[in-house]
Amino acid sequence: MIEAVLFDLSGVLYTGTEPIPGAVESIQKLNKAGLPIRYITNTTRSPRGKILKRLQSMGFAIHEDQLLTAPVAARHYLIEKGLSPFLLIHPDLKVEFADLESNNSNAVLVGDAGSAFTYEHMNQAFRLLVEGVPLIAMGKNRYFREQDGLSLDAGPFVVALEYAAETEAILIGKPSPEFFRAALESIHAKAENTIMVGDDVEADVIGALDAGLQGILVRTGKYRSGDEKKIEGRAVCLDDINTVVEWILDQKTN
Amino acid sequence: MIEAVLFDLSGVLYTGTEPIPGAVESIQKLNKAGLPIRYITNTTRSPRGKILKRLQSMGFAIHEDQLLTAPVAARHYLIEKGLSPFLLIHPDLKVEFADLESNNSNAVLVGDAGSAFTYEHMNQAFRLLVEGVPLIAMGKNRYFREQDGLSLDAGPFVVALEYAAETEAILIGKPSPEFFRAALESIHAKAENTIMVGDDVEADVIGALDAGLQGILVRTGKYRSGDEKKIEGRAVCLDDINTVVEWILDQKTN
Repeated sequence: MIEAVLFDLSGVLYTGTEPIPGAVESIQKLNKAGLPIRYITNTTRSPRGKILKRLQSMGFAIHEDQLLTAPVAARHYLIEKGLSPFLLIHPDLKVEFADLESNNSNAVLVGDAGSAFTYEHMNQAFRLLVEGVPLIAMGKNRYFREQDGLSLDAGPFVVALEYAAETEAILIGKPSPEFFRAALESIHAKAENTIMVGDDVEADVIGALDAGLQGILVRTGKYRSGDEKKIEGRAVCLDDINTVVEWILDQKTN
Repeated sequence: MIEAVLFDLSGVLYTGTEPIPGAVESIQKLNKAGLPIRYITNTTRSPRGKILKRLQSMGFAIHEDQLLTAPVAARHYLIEKGLSPFLLIHPDLKVEFADLESNNSNAVLVGDAGSAFTYEHMNQAFRLLVEGVPLIAMGKNRYFREQDGLSLDAGPFVVALEYAAETEAILIGKPSPEFFRAALESIHAKAENTIMVGDDVEADVIGALDAGLQGILVRTGKYRSGDEKKIEGRAVCLDDINTVVEWILDQKTN
Protein backbone atom coordinates (compact mmCIF):
# COMPACT_ATOMS: atom_id res chain seq x y z
CA MET A 1 0.00 0.00 0.00
CA ILE A 2 1.28 3.45 -0.94
CA GLU A 3 -0.32 6.47 0.71
CA ALA A 4 2.27 9.20 0.08
CA VAL A 5 5.40 10.04 -1.90
CA LEU A 6 8.46 12.11 -0.99
CA PHE A 7 10.69 13.45 -3.77
CA ASP A 8 14.20 14.75 -3.66
CA LEU A 9 14.60 17.72 -6.02
CA SER A 10 17.96 18.18 -7.75
CA GLY A 11 18.77 15.18 -9.96
CA VAL A 12 15.21 13.81 -9.67
CA LEU A 13 12.99 16.65 -10.95
CA TYR A 14 15.73 18.64 -12.66
CA THR A 15 19.47 18.86 -13.43
CA GLY A 16 20.99 22.32 -13.18
CA THR A 17 18.25 24.57 -14.53
CA GLU A 18 16.58 22.01 -16.82
CA PRO A 19 13.69 19.74 -15.81
CA ILE A 20 14.22 16.02 -16.46
CA PRO A 21 12.26 15.41 -19.71
CA GLY A 22 8.69 14.37 -18.83
CA ALA A 23 9.05 15.22 -15.13
CA VAL A 24 6.52 18.07 -15.16
CA GLU A 25 3.87 15.81 -16.70
CA SER A 26 4.68 12.91 -14.38
CA ILE A 27 4.16 15.09 -11.32
CA GLN A 28 0.85 16.25 -12.80
CA LYS A 29 -0.24 12.60 -13.19
CA LEU A 30 0.62 11.85 -9.61
CA ASN A 31 -1.24 14.94 -8.40
CA LYS A 32 -4.33 13.84 -10.37
CA ALA A 33 -4.14 10.42 -8.72
CA GLY A 34 -4.61 12.26 -5.40
CA LEU A 35 -1.46 11.01 -3.70
CA PRO A 36 -0.06 13.44 -1.11
CA ILE A 37 3.44 14.57 -2.13
CA ARG A 38 6.24 16.33 -0.29
CA TYR A 39 9.50 17.60 -1.74
CA ILE A 40 12.39 17.31 0.70
CA THR A 41 15.81 18.71 -0.07
CA ASN A 42 19.23 19.24 1.46
CA THR A 43 19.94 21.94 -1.12
CA THR A 44 21.51 24.83 0.75
CA ARG A 45 22.60 27.16 -2.01
CA SER A 46 19.30 29.09 -2.12
CA PRO A 47 16.60 30.17 0.32
CA ARG A 48 13.32 28.21 0.23
CA GLY A 49 11.39 30.93 -1.62
CA LYS A 50 13.90 30.98 -4.44
CA ILE A 51 13.85 27.18 -4.81
CA LEU A 52 10.06 27.29 -4.99
CA LYS A 53 10.08 30.00 -7.65
CA ARG A 54 12.65 28.10 -9.69
CA LEU A 55 10.54 24.93 -9.57
CA GLN A 56 7.42 26.83 -10.55
CA SER A 57 9.21 28.59 -13.41
CA MET A 58 10.24 25.16 -14.73
CA GLY A 59 6.53 24.32 -14.83
CA PHE A 60 6.18 22.17 -11.71
CA ALA A 61 2.85 22.57 -9.88
CA ILE A 62 4.27 22.69 -6.36
CA HIS A 63 2.69 24.48 -3.42
CA GLU A 64 4.74 26.26 -0.77
CA ASP A 65 3.55 23.88 1.97
CA GLN A 66 4.87 20.89 0.06
CA LEU A 67 8.51 21.99 0.20
CA LEU A 68 10.64 21.00 3.20
CA THR A 69 14.25 22.20 3.23
CA ALA A 70 17.21 21.43 5.49
CA PRO A 71 17.86 25.16 6.15
CA VAL A 72 14.33 25.64 7.51
CA ALA A 73 14.83 22.63 9.79
CA ALA A 74 18.23 23.98 10.85
CA ARG A 75 16.72 27.36 11.70
CA HIS A 76 14.12 25.69 13.93
CA TYR A 77 16.88 23.70 15.63
CA LEU A 78 19.11 26.74 16.27
CA ILE A 79 16.26 28.78 17.73
CA GLU A 80 15.05 25.88 19.89
CA LYS A 81 18.57 25.41 21.32
CA GLY A 82 19.28 29.16 21.63
CA LEU A 83 22.33 28.92 19.38
CA SER A 84 24.04 31.75 17.53
CA PRO A 85 25.89 30.20 14.60
CA PHE A 86 29.08 30.93 12.74
CA LEU A 87 27.81 30.55 9.16
CA LEU A 88 29.83 28.39 6.78
CA ILE A 89 27.11 28.56 4.14
CA HIS A 90 26.43 29.91 0.67
CA PRO A 91 26.19 33.74 0.54
CA ASP A 92 22.71 33.46 -1.02
CA LEU A 93 21.45 31.57 2.04
CA LYS A 94 22.80 33.98 4.66
CA VAL A 95 19.58 36.00 4.64
CA GLU A 96 17.79 33.05 6.31
CA PHE A 97 20.14 33.09 9.31
CA ALA A 98 21.42 36.67 9.53
CA ASP A 99 19.20 37.51 12.54
CA LEU A 100 20.68 34.61 14.52
CA GLU A 101 24.32 35.72 14.11
CA SER A 102 26.21 37.50 16.90
CA ASN A 103 29.77 38.31 17.90
CA ASN A 104 29.78 35.28 20.17
CA SER A 105 29.17 32.27 17.97
CA ASN A 106 28.31 29.19 20.01
CA ALA A 107 27.75 26.85 17.07
CA VAL A 108 29.06 26.24 13.56
CA LEU A 109 26.46 25.79 10.81
CA VAL A 110 27.63 24.17 7.57
CA GLY A 111 25.78 23.98 4.28
CA ASP A 112 26.88 23.70 0.68
CA ALA A 113 28.90 26.91 0.77
CA GLY A 114 30.42 26.42 -2.69
CA SER A 115 33.19 28.95 -3.30
CA ALA A 116 32.73 30.23 0.25
CA PHE A 117 34.51 27.05 1.41
CA THR A 118 37.81 28.93 1.61
CA TYR A 119 40.70 27.85 3.83
CA GLU A 120 40.17 30.94 5.96
CA HIS A 121 36.46 30.16 6.59
CA MET A 122 37.21 26.51 7.28
CA ASN A 123 39.90 27.55 9.76
CA GLN A 124 37.56 29.99 11.53
CA ALA A 125 35.03 27.19 11.91
CA PHE A 126 37.73 24.78 13.12
CA ARG A 127 38.97 27.17 15.80
CA LEU A 128 35.44 27.42 17.21
CA LEU A 129 35.02 23.66 17.11
CA VAL A 130 38.21 22.98 19.09
CA GLU A 131 36.76 25.29 21.74
CA GLY A 132 33.90 22.79 21.99
CA VAL A 133 31.00 24.45 20.15
CA PRO A 134 28.68 22.05 18.29
CA LEU A 135 28.97 21.39 14.55
CA ILE A 136 25.59 21.47 12.81
CA ALA A 137 25.47 20.09 9.27
CA MET A 138 22.62 20.60 6.81
CA GLY A 139 23.33 17.32 5.06
CA LYS A 140 26.42 15.24 4.54
CA ASN A 141 25.94 14.59 0.82
CA ARG A 142 29.16 13.76 -1.00
CA TYR A 143 28.45 15.47 -4.35
CA PHE A 144 25.71 16.59 -6.72
CA ARG A 145 25.46 16.78 -10.48
CA GLU A 146 25.94 20.08 -12.25
CA GLN A 147 25.53 20.50 -15.99
CA ASP A 148 29.30 20.12 -16.53
CA GLY A 149 29.87 17.22 -14.13
CA LEU A 150 29.83 16.13 -10.49
CA SER A 151 30.63 18.77 -7.87
CA LEU A 152 31.44 18.64 -4.19
CA ASP A 153 28.49 19.05 -1.82
CA ALA A 154 28.73 20.01 1.87
CA GLY A 155 29.50 16.47 3.12
CA PRO A 156 33.24 16.40 2.40
CA PHE A 157 33.73 19.71 4.22
CA VAL A 158 31.65 18.52 7.18
CA VAL A 159 33.80 15.39 7.36
CA ALA A 160 36.95 17.54 7.14
CA LEU A 161 35.86 19.57 10.18
CA GLU A 162 34.79 16.44 12.09
CA TYR A 163 38.25 14.95 11.48
CA ALA A 164 40.15 18.14 12.31
CA ALA A 165 38.37 18.81 15.59
CA GLU A 166 37.72 15.16 16.47
CA THR A 167 34.01 15.80 16.81
CA GLU A 168 30.79 14.51 15.26
CA ALA A 169 28.32 16.75 13.44
CA ILE A 170 24.67 17.04 14.43
CA LEU A 171 22.95 16.20 11.17
CA ILE A 172 19.92 18.21 10.06
CA GLY A 173 18.28 17.18 6.76
CA LYS A 174 18.44 13.81 5.02
CA PRO A 175 19.41 11.12 6.08
CA SER A 176 18.44 12.28 9.58
CA PRO A 177 15.33 10.31 10.66
CA GLU A 178 13.86 13.49 12.24
CA PHE A 179 13.76 15.13 8.83
CA PHE A 180 11.83 12.25 7.27
CA ARG A 181 9.51 12.20 10.29
CA ALA A 182 8.73 15.90 9.91
CA ALA A 183 7.73 15.26 6.29
CA LEU A 184 5.50 12.32 7.29
CA GLU A 185 3.82 14.33 10.05
CA SER A 186 2.96 17.13 7.64
CA ILE A 187 0.91 14.66 5.55
CA HIS A 188 -0.21 12.32 8.35
CA ALA A 189 1.30 9.35 6.51
CA LYS A 190 2.76 6.16 7.93
CA ALA A 191 6.45 5.56 7.24
CA GLU A 192 5.90 2.06 5.85
CA ASN A 193 3.30 3.33 3.36
CA THR A 194 5.44 6.22 2.11
CA ILE A 195 7.98 6.11 -0.71
CA MET A 196 11.07 8.31 -0.85
CA VAL A 197 12.40 8.88 -4.38
CA GLY A 198 15.96 10.14 -4.79
CA ASP A 199 19.20 10.08 -6.78
CA ASP A 200 21.42 9.98 -3.68
CA VAL A 201 21.63 6.36 -2.62
CA GLU A 202 22.78 7.24 0.90
CA ALA A 203 21.01 10.44 1.98
CA ASP A 204 17.76 9.72 0.12
CA VAL A 205 17.28 5.98 -0.20
CA ILE A 206 19.25 4.34 2.61
CA GLY A 207 18.25 7.23 4.90
CA ALA A 208 14.57 6.61 4.10
CA LEU A 209 14.88 2.83 4.52
CA ASP A 210 16.58 3.29 7.88
CA ALA A 211 13.72 5.58 8.94
CA GLY A 212 11.20 2.86 8.05
CA LEU A 213 10.05 4.23 4.68
CA GLN A 214 10.20 2.58 1.29
CA GLY A 215 12.77 3.89 -1.16
CA ILE A 216 13.32 4.17 -4.91
CA LEU A 217 16.64 5.13 -6.48
CA VAL A 218 16.57 6.86 -9.87
CA ARG A 219 19.30 6.62 -12.52
CA THR A 220 19.36 10.39 -13.13
CA GLY A 221 21.26 13.21 -11.42
CA LYS A 222 24.23 12.10 -9.36
CA TYR A 223 23.42 8.39 -9.84
CA ARG A 224 26.56 6.40 -10.67
CA SER A 225 26.66 2.86 -12.03
CA GLY A 226 26.81 0.43 -9.12
CA ASP A 227 24.92 2.64 -6.64
CA GLU A 228 22.03 0.15 -6.69
CA LYS A 229 24.29 -2.52 -5.16
CA LYS A 230 24.16 -0.57 -1.90
CA ILE A 231 20.37 -1.16 -1.63
CA GLU A 232 20.12 -4.64 -3.15
CA GLY A 233 17.09 -6.46 -1.79
CA ARG A 234 15.92 -3.40 0.13
CA ALA A 235 14.73 -1.00 -2.59
CA VAL A 236 14.28 -0.82 -6.35
CA CYS A 237 16.26 1.27 -8.83
CA LEU A 238 14.34 2.74 -11.79
CA ASP A 239 15.38 4.80 -14.81
CA ASP A 240 13.87 8.18 -13.95
CA ILE A 241 10.96 9.98 -12.34
CA ASN A 242 8.67 9.02 -15.22
CA THR A 243 9.27 5.32 -14.69
CA VAL A 244 8.86 5.86 -10.95
CA VAL A 245 5.43 7.48 -11.35
CA GLU A 246 4.25 4.68 -13.67
CA TRP A 247 5.51 2.13 -11.13
CA ILE A 248 3.71 3.87 -8.24
CA LEU A 249 0.43 4.21 -10.14
CA ASP A 250 0.69 0.53 -11.14
CA GLN A 251 1.16 -0.49 -7.51
CA LYS A 252 -1.82 1.61 -6.46
CA THR A 253 -4.22 0.08 -8.97
CA ASN A 254 -3.03 -3.51 -8.39
CA MET B 1 69.50 1.23 24.51
CA ILE B 2 69.22 4.34 22.38
CA GLU B 3 71.30 4.55 19.22
CA ALA B 4 69.52 7.31 17.24
CA VAL B 5 66.92 10.06 17.57
CA LEU B 6 64.36 11.37 15.08
CA PHE B 7 62.85 14.81 15.61
CA ASP B 8 59.74 16.35 14.17
CA LEU B 9 60.33 20.04 13.40
CA SER B 10 57.38 22.43 13.81
CA GLY B 11 56.13 22.45 17.39
CA VAL B 12 59.21 20.57 18.64
CA LEU B 13 62.17 22.74 17.57
CA TYR B 14 60.17 25.91 16.86
CA THR B 15 56.73 27.50 16.78
CA GLY B 16 56.05 29.78 13.83
CA THR B 17 59.38 31.54 13.31
CA GLU B 18 60.63 31.30 16.93
CA PRO B 19 62.76 28.46 18.29
CA ILE B 20 61.44 26.81 21.45
CA PRO B 21 63.55 28.43 24.24
CA GLY B 22 66.64 26.29 24.86
CA ALA B 23 66.10 24.09 21.79
CA VAL B 24 69.21 25.26 19.93
CA GLU B 25 71.40 24.43 22.93
CA SER B 26 69.69 21.09 23.54
CA ILE B 27 70.36 19.98 19.96
CA GLN B 28 74.00 21.02 20.42
CA LYS B 29 74.22 18.84 23.56
CA LEU B 30 72.81 15.86 21.70
CA ASN B 31 75.21 16.39 18.80
CA LYS B 32 78.13 16.46 21.23
CA ALA B 33 76.97 13.18 22.73
CA GLY B 34 77.50 11.68 19.27
CA LEU B 35 73.96 10.37 18.76
CA PRO B 36 72.89 10.25 15.10
CA ILE B 37 69.92 12.54 14.50
CA ARG B 38 67.42 12.87 11.66
CA TYR B 39 64.73 15.53 11.29
CA ILE B 40 61.62 14.19 9.61
CA THR B 41 58.73 16.43 8.69
CA ASN B 42 55.39 16.43 6.91
CA THR B 43 55.65 20.19 6.46
CA THR B 44 54.62 20.91 2.89
CA ARG B 45 54.42 24.69 2.80
CA SER B 46 58.08 25.16 1.79
CA PRO B 47 60.66 23.33 -0.29
CA ARG B 48 63.36 21.43 1.58
CA GLY B 49 66.08 24.02 0.94
CA LYS B 50 63.97 26.77 2.44
CA ILE B 51 63.16 24.72 5.56
CA LEU B 52 66.87 24.03 6.02
CA LYS B 53 67.78 27.72 5.67
CA ARG B 54 65.07 28.70 8.14
CA LEU B 55 66.35 26.18 10.70
CA GLN B 56 69.93 27.34 10.25
CA SER B 57 68.93 31.00 10.56
CA MET B 58 67.26 30.14 13.88
CA GLY B 59 70.66 28.83 15.01
CA PHE B 60 70.14 25.07 14.65
CA ALA B 61 73.23 23.14 13.55
CA ILE B 62 71.51 20.89 11.03
CA HIS B 63 73.15 19.39 7.95
CA GLU B 64 71.29 18.95 4.68
CA ASP B 65 71.55 15.14 4.82
CA GLN B 66 69.80 15.08 8.16
CA LEU B 67 66.54 16.51 6.84
CA LEU B 68 63.90 14.14 5.42
CA THR B 69 60.70 15.71 4.11
CA ALA B 70 57.41 14.24 2.88
CA PRO B 71 57.61 16.17 -0.43
CA VAL B 72 60.97 14.62 -1.27
CA ALA B 73 59.54 11.16 -0.53
CA ALA B 74 56.46 12.00 -2.61
CA ARG B 75 58.61 13.06 -5.55
CA HIS B 76 60.47 9.74 -5.43
CA TYR B 77 57.15 7.88 -5.35
CA LEU B 78 55.66 9.78 -8.29
CA ILE B 79 58.74 9.25 -10.47
CA GLU B 80 58.96 5.57 -9.54
CA LYS B 81 55.29 5.05 -10.50
CA GLY B 82 55.47 7.27 -13.60
CA LEU B 83 52.72 9.56 -12.30
CA SER B 84 51.96 13.08 -13.46
CA PRO B 85 50.13 14.79 -10.59
CA PHE B 86 47.44 17.42 -10.30
CA LEU B 87 48.96 19.57 -7.56
CA LEU B 88 46.76 20.53 -4.62
CA ILE B 89 49.72 21.99 -2.73
CA HIS B 90 51.09 25.26 -1.44
CA PRO B 91 52.25 27.64 -4.22
CA ASP B 92 55.71 27.80 -2.59
CA LEU B 93 56.12 24.04 -3.01
CA LYS B 94 55.12 23.86 -6.69
CA VAL B 95 58.72 24.35 -7.81
CA GLU B 96 59.54 20.86 -6.47
CA PHE B 97 56.94 19.19 -8.71
CA ALA B 98 56.56 21.51 -11.71
CA ASP B 99 58.55 19.23 -14.03
CA LEU B 100 56.20 16.30 -13.30
CA GLU B 101 53.02 18.17 -14.27
CA SER B 102 51.31 17.58 -17.62
CA ASN B 103 47.95 18.17 -19.28
CA ASN B 104 46.96 14.62 -18.47
CA SER B 105 47.08 14.30 -14.71
CA ASN B 106 46.93 10.67 -13.60
CA ALA B 107 47.26 11.33 -9.86
CA VAL B 108 46.23 13.91 -7.27
CA LEU B 109 48.94 15.09 -4.87
CA VAL B 110 47.80 16.83 -1.68
CA GLY B 111 49.89 18.77 0.80
CA ASP B 112 49.17 21.58 3.21
CA ALA B 113 47.98 23.94 0.48
CA GLY B 114 46.80 26.64 2.91
CA SER B 115 44.79 29.29 1.10
CA ALA B 116 45.14 27.28 -2.12
CA PHE B 117 42.52 24.90 -0.66
CA THR B 118 39.76 26.67 -2.57
CA TYR B 119 36.46 25.03 -3.52
CA GLU B 120 37.49 25.17 -7.17
CA HIS B 121 40.80 23.35 -6.57
CA MET B 122 39.12 20.77 -4.35
CA ASN B 123 36.51 20.18 -7.04
CA GLN B 124 39.14 19.77 -9.76
CA ALA B 125 40.89 17.17 -7.61
CA PHE B 126 37.57 15.44 -6.87
CA ARG B 127 36.64 15.16 -10.53
CA LEU B 128 39.95 13.42 -11.26
CA LEU B 129 39.47 11.08 -8.30
CA VAL B 130 36.00 9.93 -9.41
CA GLU B 131 37.65 9.00 -12.73
CA GLY B 132 39.79 6.61 -10.69
CA VAL B 133 43.19 8.32 -10.42
CA PRO B 134 45.06 7.70 -7.12
CA LEU B 135 45.05 10.19 -4.25
CA ILE B 136 48.52 10.73 -2.80
CA ALA B 137 48.72 12.54 0.53
CA MET B 138 51.85 14.03 2.06
CA GLY B 139 50.57 13.51 5.59
CA LYS B 140 47.15 13.38 7.15
CA ASN B 141 47.88 15.67 10.09
CA ARG B 142 44.80 17.32 11.54
CA TYR B 143 46.27 20.72 12.47
CA PHE B 144 49.42 22.53 13.47
CA ARG B 145 50.14 25.43 15.80
CA GLU B 146 50.67 28.90 14.39
CA GLN B 147 51.56 31.88 16.53
CA ASP B 148 47.90 32.96 16.74
CA GLY B 149 46.40 29.51 17.33
CA LEU B 150 45.76 26.09 15.80
CA SER B 151 45.34 25.92 12.02
CA LEU B 152 44.10 23.25 9.65
CA ASP B 153 46.77 21.01 8.15
CA ALA B 154 46.37 18.87 5.02
CA GLY B 155 44.65 15.94 6.78
CA PRO B 156 41.10 17.34 6.89
CA PHE B 157 41.22 18.11 3.16
CA VAL B 158 42.60 14.65 2.38
CA VAL B 159 39.78 13.11 4.38
CA ALA B 160 37.26 15.34 2.55
CA LEU B 161 38.46 14.03 -0.83
CA GLU B 162 38.52 10.44 0.42
CA TYR B 163 34.91 10.79 1.57
CA ALA B 164 33.75 12.57 -1.60
CA ALA B 165 35.26 10.09 -4.03
CA GLU B 166 34.91 7.02 -1.76
CA THR B 167 38.60 6.28 -2.03
CA GLU B 168 41.58 5.89 0.28
CA ALA B 169 44.70 8.03 0.05
CA ILE B 170 48.18 6.59 -0.41
CA LEU B 171 49.99 8.14 2.53
CA ILE B 172 53.54 9.47 2.06
CA GLY B 173 55.21 10.94 5.15
CA LYS B 174 54.45 10.24 8.80
CA PRO B 175 52.78 8.01 10.04
CA SER B 176 53.59 5.86 7.01
CA PRO B 177 56.00 3.08 8.15
CA GLU B 178 58.00 3.48 4.89
CA PHE B 179 58.85 7.04 5.87
CA PHE B 180 60.21 6.00 9.27
CA ARG B 181 62.09 3.14 7.61
CA ALA B 182 63.76 5.51 5.14
CA ALA B 183 64.99 7.60 8.08
CA LEU B 184 66.32 4.52 9.89
CA GLU B 185 68.12 3.28 6.78
CA SER B 186 69.89 6.60 6.31
CA ILE B 187 71.49 6.19 9.76
CA HIS B 188 71.69 2.37 9.84
CA ALA B 189 69.77 2.31 13.10
CA LYS B 190 67.44 -0.35 14.44
CA ALA B 191 63.82 0.66 14.92
CA GLU B 192 63.67 -0.55 18.54
CA ASN B 193 66.75 1.50 19.47
CA THR B 194 65.51 4.71 17.86
CA ILE B 195 63.35 7.37 19.49
CA MET B 196 60.92 9.54 17.56
CA VAL B 197 60.15 12.88 19.27
CA GLY B 198 57.06 14.80 18.18
CA ASP B 199 54.14 17.04 19.14
CA ASP B 200 51.64 15.16 16.97
CA VAL B 201 50.44 12.21 19.00
CA GLU B 202 49.17 10.37 15.93
CA ALA B 203 51.51 11.09 13.01
CA ASP B 204 54.69 11.27 15.14
CA VAL B 205 54.28 9.12 18.21
CA ILE B 206 51.69 6.45 17.41
CA GLY B 207 53.09 6.27 13.87
CA ALA B 208 56.58 5.60 15.26
CA LEU B 209 55.33 3.07 17.81
CA ASP B 210 53.43 1.19 15.10
CA ALA B 211 56.62 1.11 13.00
CA GLY B 212 58.51 -0.48 15.91
CA LEU B 213 60.30 2.66 17.18
CA GLN B 214 60.17 4.23 20.62
CA GLY B 215 58.26 7.49 20.92
CA ILE B 216 58.21 10.62 23.06
CA LEU B 217 55.40 13.18 22.98
CA VAL B 218 56.27 16.79 23.88
CA ARG B 219 53.89 19.30 25.45
CA THR B 220 54.78 22.08 23.00
CA GLY B 221 53.42 22.94 19.54
CA LYS B 222 50.06 21.41 18.73
CA TYR B 223 50.01 19.31 21.94
CA ARG B 224 46.61 19.48 23.62
CA SER B 225 45.82 18.36 27.15
CA GLY B 226 44.76 14.73 27.10
CA ASP B 227 46.82 13.74 24.03
CA GLU B 228 49.03 11.59 26.26
CA LYS B 229 46.05 9.34 27.04
CA LYS B 230 46.28 8.04 23.49
CA ILE B 231 49.74 6.57 24.16
CA GLU B 232 49.35 5.52 27.81
CA GLY B 233 51.69 2.68 28.64
CA ARG B 234 53.34 2.82 25.21
CA ALA B 235 55.35 6.05 25.30
CA VAL B 236 56.24 8.90 27.66
CA CYS B 237 55.11 12.51 27.46
CA LEU B 238 57.65 15.20 28.45
CA ASP B 239 57.48 18.97 28.74
CA ASP B 240 59.63 20.04 25.80
CA ILE B 241 62.69 19.24 23.72
CA ASN B 242 65.01 20.29 26.57
CA THR B 243 63.48 17.76 28.97
CA VAL B 244 63.59 15.17 26.20
CA VAL B 245 67.32 15.66 25.60
CA GLU B 246 68.05 15.42 29.34
CA TRP B 247 65.95 12.25 29.48
CA ILE B 248 67.79 10.70 26.50
CA LEU B 249 71.25 11.57 27.85
CA ASP B 250 70.22 10.13 31.24
CA GLN B 251 69.11 6.87 29.60
CA LYS B 252 72.35 6.68 27.67
CA THR B 253 74.59 7.04 30.72
CA ASN B 254 72.54 4.69 32.89
